[in-house]
Amino acid sequence: MRRPFRKRSEKAGLPPGTMVHIGEQETEQVRIHIIDYDDGHYQELEAQSVEECFPFRDTPTVTWINVHGLHQPEVIEKLGTYYGLHPLVLEDIVSAGQRPKMEDYGDYMWVVLKALYHDDKEDETKAHQVGIVIGRNFVMSFQEAEGNVFVPVRDRVKNGAARIRTMGSDYLAYSLMDIVVDNYFGILERLGEQLEVMEDRSVTEPEPDTLQSIHDFRREMVFLRRSVWPLREVVARLERGDSSLIQKSTAIYFRDVYDHTIQVIDTIETFRDMVSPMLEVYVSSVSNKMNEVMKVLTVIGTIFLPLTFLAGVYGMNFKYFPEINWRWGYGFFWVINLSVVIGMLMYFRRKRWF
Amino acid sequence: MRRPFRKRSEKAGLPPGTMVHIGEQETEQVRIHIIDYDDGHYQELEAQSVEECFPFRDTPTVTWINVHGLHQPEVIEKLGTYYGLHPLVLEDIVSAGQRPKMEDYGDYMWVVLKALYHDDKEDETKAHQVGIVIGRNFVMSFQEAEGNVFVPVRDRVKNGAARIRTMGSDYLAYSLMDIVVDNYFGILERLGEQLEVMEDRSVTEPEPDTLQSIHDFRREMVFLRRSVWPLREVVARLERGDSSLIQKSTAIYFRDVYDHTIQVIDTIETFRDMVSPMLEVYVSSVSNKMNEVMKVLTVIGTIFLPLTFLAGVYGMNFKYFPEINWRWGYGFFWVINLSVVIGMLMYFRRKRWF
Amino acid sequence: MRRPFRKRSEKAGLPPGTMVHIGEQETEQVRIHIIDYDDGHYQELEAQSVEECFPFRDTPTVTWINVHGLHQPEVIEKLGTYYGLHPLVLEDIVSAGQRPKMEDYGDYMWVVLKALYHDDKEDETKAHQVGIVIGRNFVMSFQEAEGNVFVPVRDRVKNGAARIRTMGSDYLAYSLMDIVVDNYFGILERLGEQLEVMEDRSVTEPEPDTLQSIHDFRREMVFLRRSVWPLREVVARLERGDSSLIQKSTAIYFRDVYDHTIQVIDTIETFRDMVSPMLEVYVSSVSNKMNEVMKVLTVIGTIFLPLTFLAGVYGMNFKYFPEINWRWGYGFFWVINLSVVIGMLMYFRRKRWF
Amino acid sequence: MRRPFRKRSEKAGLPPGTMVHIGEQETEQVRIHIIDYDDGHYQELEAQSVEECFPFRDTPTVTWINVHGLHQPEVIEKLGTYYGLHPLVLEDIVSAGQRPKMEDYGDYMWVVLKALYHDDKEDETKAHQVGIVIGRNFVMSFQEAEGNVFVPVRDRVKNGAARIRTMGSDYLAYSLMDIVVDNYFGILERLGEQLEVMEDRSVTEPEPDTLQSIHDFRREMVFLRRSVWPLREVVARLERGDSSLIQKSTAIYFRDVYDHTIQVIDTIETFRDMVSPMLEVYVSSVSNKMNEVMKVLTVIGTIFLPLTFLAGVYGMNFKYFPEINWRWGYGFFWVINLSVVIGMLMYFRRKRWF
Amino acid sequence: MRRPFRKRSEKAGLPPGTMVHIGEQETEQVRIHIIDYDDGHYQELEAQSVEECFPFRDTPTVTWINVHGLHQPEVIEKLGTYYGLHPLVLEDIVSAGQRPKMEDYGDYMWVVLKALYHDDKEDETKAHQVGIVIGRNFVMSFQEAEGNVFVPVRDRVKNGAARIRTMGSDYLAYSLMDIVVDNYFGILERLGEQLEVMEDRSVTEPEPDTLQSIHDFRREMVFLRRSVWPLREVVARLERGDSSLIQKSTAIYFRDVYDHTIQVIDTIETFRDMVSPMLEVYVSSVSNKMNEVMKVLTVIGTIFLPLTFLAGVYGMNFKYFPEINWRWGYGFFWVINLSVVIGMLMYFRRKRWF
Repeated sequence: MRRPFRKRSEKAGLPPGTMVHIGEQETEQVRIHIIDYDDGHYQELEAQSVEECFPFRDTPTVTWINVHGLHQPEVIEKLGTYYGLHPLVLEDIVSAGQRPKMEDYGDYMWVVLKALYHDDKEDETKAHQVGIVIGRNFVMSFQEAEGNVFVPVRDRVKNGAARIRTMGSDYLAYSLMDIVVDNYFGILERLGEQLEVMEDRSVTEPEPDTLQSIHDFRREMVFLRRSVWPLREVVARLERGDSSLIQKSTAIYFRDVYDHTIQVIDTIETFRDMVSPMLEVYVSSVSNKMNEVMKVLTVIGTIFLPLTFLAGVYGMNFKYFPEINWRWGYGFFWVINLSVVIGMLMYFRRKRWF
Repeated sequence: MRRPFRKRSEKAGLPPGTMVHIGEQETEQVRIHIIDYDDGHYQELEAQSVEECFPFRDTPTVTWINVHGLHQPEVIEKLGTYYGLHPLVLEDIVSAGQRPKMEDYGDYMWVVLKALYHDDKEDETKAHQVGIVIGRNFVMSFQEAEGNVFVPVRDRVKNGAARIRTMGSDYLAYSLMDIVVDNYFGILERLGEQLEVMEDRSVTEPEPDTLQSIHDFRREMVFLRRSVWPLREVVARLERGDSSLIQKSTAIYFRDVYDHTIQVIDTIETFRDMVSPMLEVYVSSVSNKMNEVMKVLTVIGTIFLPLTFLAGVYGMNFKYFPEINWRWGYGFFWVINLSVVIGMLMYFRRKRWF
Repeated sequence: MRRPFRKRSEKAGLPPGTMVHIGEQETEQVRIHIIDYDDGHYQELEAQSVEECFPFRDTPTVTWINVHGLHQPEVIEKLGTYYGLHPLVLEDIVSAGQRPKMEDYGDYMWVVLKALYHDDKEDETKAHQVGIVIGRNFVMSFQEAEGNVFVPVRDRVKNGAARIRTMGSDYLAYSLMDIVVDNYFGILERLGEQLEVMEDRSVTEPEPDTLQSIHDFRREMVFLRRSVWPLREVVARLERGDSSLIQKSTAIYFRDVYDHTIQVIDTIETFRDMVSPMLEVYVSSVSNKMNEVMKVLTVIGTIFLPLTFLAGVYGMNFKYFPEINWRWGYGFFWVINLSVVIGMLMYFRRKRWF
Repeated sequence: MRRPFRKRSEKAGLPPGTMVHIGEQETEQVRIHIIDYDDGHYQELEAQSVEECFPFRDTPTVTWINVHGLHQPEVIEKLGTYYGLHPLVLEDIVSAGQRPKMEDYGDYMWVVLKALYHDDKEDETKAHQVGIVIGRNFVMSFQEAEGNVFVPVRDRVKNGAARIRTMGSDYLAYSLMDIVVDNYFGILERLGEQLEVMEDRSVTEPEPDTLQSIHDFRREMVFLRRSVWPLREVVARLERGDSSLIQKSTAIYFRDVYDHTIQVIDTIETFRDMVSPMLEVYVSSVSNKMNEVMKVLTVIGTIFLPLTFLAGVYGMNFKYFPEINWRWGYGFFWVINLSVVIGMLMYFRRKRWF
Repeated sequence: MRRPFRKRSEKAGLPPGTMVHIGEQETEQVRIHIIDYDDGHYQELEAQSVEECFPFRDTPTVTWINVHGLHQPEVIEKLGTYYGLHPLVLEDIVSAGQRPKMEDYGDYMWVVLKALYHDDKEDETKAHQVGIVIGRNFVMSFQEAEGNVFVPVRDRVKNGAARIRTMGSDYLAYSLMDIVVDNYFGILERLGEQLEVMEDRSVTEPEPDTLQSIHDFRREMVFLRRSVWPLREVVARLERGDSSLIQKSTAIYFRDVYDHTIQVIDTIETFRDMVSPMLEVYVSSVSNKMNEVMKVLTVIGTIFLPLTFLAGVYGMNFKYFPEINWRWGYGFFWVINLSVVIGMLMYFRRKRWF
């Protein structure tokens, strides 16, 4: 079962800026991947030590430092301090479970967002925190886990064909955020199919199982909303281009990300609107089915009552009991019974009671 | 069953501006229809190739380029590039499933809206995306399918009688949007009638069928809200006339579209308000009906219980059993039974139990 | 049953400004009533033709042109064109079913509001559209039907005693709107009494009938909200006095109308808040009553079960059956039965089961 | 039962400023109480005629004119006209049932608020309208009924110890409003205790009585919200100190009133949040209890069924019926019955059915 | 059971600034703890009398005056008056049960927040009021009870290692608020675990007990929201740095507190979203379980009905009754019964009725 948040309480009381890694250790080792490029130049290296990142700070080319794994705060701290990041940013980087947010520190911006993926083992949607620092000539990206969400961007930079090589660090940041948001659509499509299945089942198979899955879907929606809603404000602020780090021509692209985010939120809201009456439909279907059963059984019961009474009557021991001695008394008994049954069945049928 | 959104996930990872057609191919061929006019002049042609559109870019007359079918991105791209549209706009044009939106690119505006129609085969409301590019002396309209929604506008231009020939491209764009919104009213009237039928049925025929139709109506409302709500903001921005492309005298007309949009939204909200308690009424009616049945049956059962007991009593084999030997014992038995039945019926009736 | 909106779809595709009368024809003939006055002068006439209104355009006195019936668009058009109204205003005038709104055209303002009345035949609240054009020295009022809602205002002008004769056209417009809003209170009082009756009945008489009336009341509220909510914004804009047509001293009076509007909205919301839990109370009362019945019946059934069993026992034909041959066996049987009944009744009573 | 609003409809059609007393006449006679004070001076008198109030208009000292009873409009009018109040204010003063509001007329401010009290006879919270006119050197307070809500303020002025004597009319107005709001807390405490009782009863005594009291409490909340919510805006505007009538040092005190108002609203909302699930709990408790009863009865019924059947079997008259003739047949019958009963009881107990 | 608010009504009518202690007396004695420090200097003392605090007012070093226990208003008053606090602040300090708020008095700021803790005895979350006065060179903190929530901050100041010694009073205030907010996470984690347990139980153990705990959890959420929501605005105002008391470099830290507050609120909302459908799930589970029982019992009843009827038939005393005299009649009877039972069981099983 998904915890609604990560353990944070252990940090209570520590001074601000204390870098305590919150979250599970998902990779064995912190890996730093560096790509440095401009229009005509492309360099890619896997850093063995954090110090290899330092020279790129002062080059005019765009440098993308991609860090996998956040469980070695000292590495992050060394890197961050050299690049002049605020202690609170460093603290944020290693604390998974942040809400999506954007903070403008003047020389650089600090963006947190959520990469969603479907955990096949537990069959539920999960989120990894992705942190992005946007500097004037560098972009740092921090991922909790060893994901390959950014591979298409790396390939695009490598191939050098797309616009990306001619643009600055803001465009690189846009590309990273864009691909994270684009991945949401896959998640939503999967959930959409799940919703359709559930919708049918809530009418046709009102089993406790279905109840559970409606309930799980609802939780999933609560989780998704929480991961995506704040992103709207984040991207809106980037699009508005308040910061000098975002060039006007790039802001148009952020508007595109904004549109996608709105579309994602819109779809989540639609899902919520569609799932919320499902419980009522389910409950109504259950009671409908139950009622049908009870009605049939009660009708059966009601039919047998006069019959049993009649049988009781002719089992009485009265001395003077004319019918008992009739020749066709027994036959008559069955005739009466049959007419009672047929009469009641017709009556019930006409009343549409079964 | 309507999918809440189009497949988008395949596009994840492609660079921005990549034109991938999203949506079903609804027409066989992309058709381009050109109308060029001003106060005294009218020209209409069916373009065989996209190049035929090019000369109109630099004429002072108003040109309306109406494109049906979006599944040949290369055609759209050629057209768009010549007219100087931004790659993201081109990407949007071929991606059905956008939310209604308006983007101002200075020299032109890009508007997305939804044309609603009733799909008779599946008996549900569907939406086609309509994209409109408003330039200084041209309007491009892009439709997913071969619809005839714009025919009245074309006729008005052709006849040359109405105001439209004397006004600029902004007024043409207004006319196109106005007719799209006006068509919503027909959809709403149909739904309004459906709602009335449903309302009666939820009280008089609380069948599972009715439950399904309430549920479907609710989905329809979710879908409609989603298609129309964002339009409000779109038209409001056009009305406010921030852009130099919209003249002041035309803005008054956009205010009229805005009024209609509000009215449509208002009606949708009213429908929602009216459909939401219907499920409760339905459930209440079902259980009312059920209760009636159960009550009648239980009353019948209760009436037979003492009778059967009495029959049982006189079936006992006690040696010393005075009533058994009475001459009128049997007749007496029936008299007692009758009084019991009548007494209980009167009691139940007085208590209004059936 | 009230339609949530008027037929509008027939107008789709017509050019803007086309005057098609929407709504039912409520009067036989369009009647134009003119009152012209200032501090010392008062003239009243029933216009035979629309041309009689024309001379008043250019006089400095305040002219009130009150039009009943909107089904002759050509009359409205002639009047409007002479007084310089925009084609969209003319279109609005003859289209009933508009939302309350206010549009400032500089030289005049166009206000739409709803006059509510109780239709005794169908026993529901209905709305007539009232359109008011406020010019510098004239006020035009357009009513769908021959109502006498404005009679008190006319009398006040006639008597010349009240402030109204010394004030301008803005004050006349205020008086008209004020009386429309004041009439809402009567409607609300009637509904308030209905609500009280319903509240009692939902507890004491949970019949399907009550369900229907709760449901109808809810619809009425949906309808009222829709008619009155937008008025708030309309009056607020008039009160703010953005337009030069409203003098500062009159704006204070509009604030009073605003207060009343808020009070009306407030009362509607209160009604909504009070009616919404009523369905739950109703359902709860129904099932309470039902449960009572079922419980009593089941208790009766349960009491007879052991008796019937006992009667069955002594109806058995075992050869060696000591009790059968006892002298007081039969008497004993009744004694046992009686104790069983009394014991069970006491037990059930103690458990408060009936 | 509380009416959601006062009769207002009789006023429809009267010119604005017409002073018609709305509300019940709660006192026998209109009483005017005058207190005139400054730092060193204190004068108190019960005015026999309204003219006694006139001289104070032009003195520099702070004058507090406290009027009880609003059913003699002519008195209010004379007073108001002398002090230069707008006709609409005079109309408001005598119309009970206003929403709390504040209107700034430049030279004076007109504030309406609600004094809440608990009507012991009908056991419900009621509201009296309190109107306050804040002038530069006077404060007028108008109360519907002869209340003693303002007595502590009068005493404070009399004693001359507190700050109040050294401050202006704004501080006096603050004191009056403060005491009205402070009285809300007593009302809320009473309701809070009621809520606790109800909460227990909804679980332990799910009687129709409890349903009624939940319902009443909800109505009370609707009523309270309506009386207090608008006050928030009223006090906020006073606190903001837009008017020159409120000195900066007094505005801080209004902030205190604002805080209390927020706290009151907050508590009302909390009550609402706490009472709204109570109905569900109640319904759930009712059906729980009902279910328990039905289950026990049905279990009893189910146990007797096989017994009765067996008794029926041994009552059959087959010629060749071996068991009938066994010596211990009858004893055996009881043994079988006993084992059936015990077996079923054990089964049901294990399944936890009763 | 938790009262939704503290007794306040006793204060009604007292002049503003009257210091009446509201809340329970939680400590024996008011204790004042003083820490005075700057970069190089550290002094800590337990004040025996309030006068010991006075000299620190005029020193340039940062002074932290931490007061435990608020039940001796005269002590608070002496301290506050010397430090120039407004009477309303003093009144607030001793009135527990305030909402979180922030008031800027120019020379100092007055902040109220809630320290949450879990009361193990009553097993519910409780709140203590924490008041903080932020002056230019001093911070006063007022706690209702003897808590050790601030101990980590004191230690950090003492050790002198962290940034805190080099920063001003604003940073100290930040540290105090930060630790209060950080403690919320522990509370939320505990509640999160409770929620998971409850979620399972609402499906598997739908006992009245579970209903109670769902209900309690909901109340807890109402309480938490009320304690934390207003804090958002408080911290936002501090972060915005409107006051000259907050330096720009410290505002960044308040932004961090703001983030945490948002995260706390977000989690509370998530909990609410997750607990609200739980009641429905519970009710649905209860009725599911009940239905299962009733169905099985009714099925049993229905099976016995024809058997009992048959037994009744062969108990009849007709003279001419062929089956009675058959040799294998009795055996036949059992064969028929067996086939009826098996047939019905198969039918019911196929219909999935049990």
